[in-house]
Amino acid sequence: MSLTELLPLTDVTACCAPLTREAISAENAEKLAKTLKAIADPARLRLISMVAAHEDAEACVCDLTEPLGLGQPTVSHHLKILVDAGIFTRDKRGTWAYYRLVPGALDSVAQHLVTV
Amino acid sequence: MSLTELLPLTDVTACCAPLTREAISAENAEKLAKTLKAIADPARLRLISMVAAHEDAEACVCDLTEPLGLGQPTVSHHLKILVDAGIFTRDKRGTWAYYRLVPGALDSVAQHLVTV
Repeated sequence: MSLTELLPLTDVTACCAPLTREAISAENAEKLAKTLKAIADPARLRLISMVAAHEDAEACVCDLTEPLGLGQPTVSHHLKILVDAGIFTRDKRGTWAYYRLVPGALDSVAQHLVTV
Repeated sequence: MSLTELLPLTDVTACCAPLTREAISAENAEKLAKTLKAIADPARLRLISMVAAHEDAEACVCDLTEPLGLGQPTVSHHLKILVDAGIFTRDKRGTWAYYRLVPGALDSVAQHLVTV
């Protein structure tokens, strides 16, 4: 696993106050919107759900194409968006790359949205 | 206030299990992606933050254009997207329409994303 594969490009785990409790800055709004856009897609939400539910909470593209009903290039494209957004890590082992959730990444997004 | 203004078109408050805990159905993934898309915009995130922070937690477009630094048609467009997505209610009183957060709408989105 290379260092770049361990470090997401966007640090979505750097947590902020809920946006309904504290005025969100223009800069933080840009960052949060970028992360939300990455997950605001039905196929990518299902990928997140599938990877989390998979054995050892990781999966390769080979595990995901059939249940998702999409071709490998399309699935790889969605996976890349999730890696670039700091939601998934990518670990190349042998023939396949394995994807898993970055701990805390989705919780950080949720933390911005809670109001209570 | 008319009945249609009280009922959001998308019932985002109908809560589901976190998507990392239970496989999300294709139908629920579509719904959640639609709501996420509505909030996945820097101006709309700032609008949510501003309306929540405003006196009585409601605001009209007249309160929002200046702090946001955008024209009234643009702000109205963003507000409409948030109303259509069930994030804001719209209450026309006199000259202006007043917007406020639908209770539980953002919390329901957050609930889908938490992993712990």
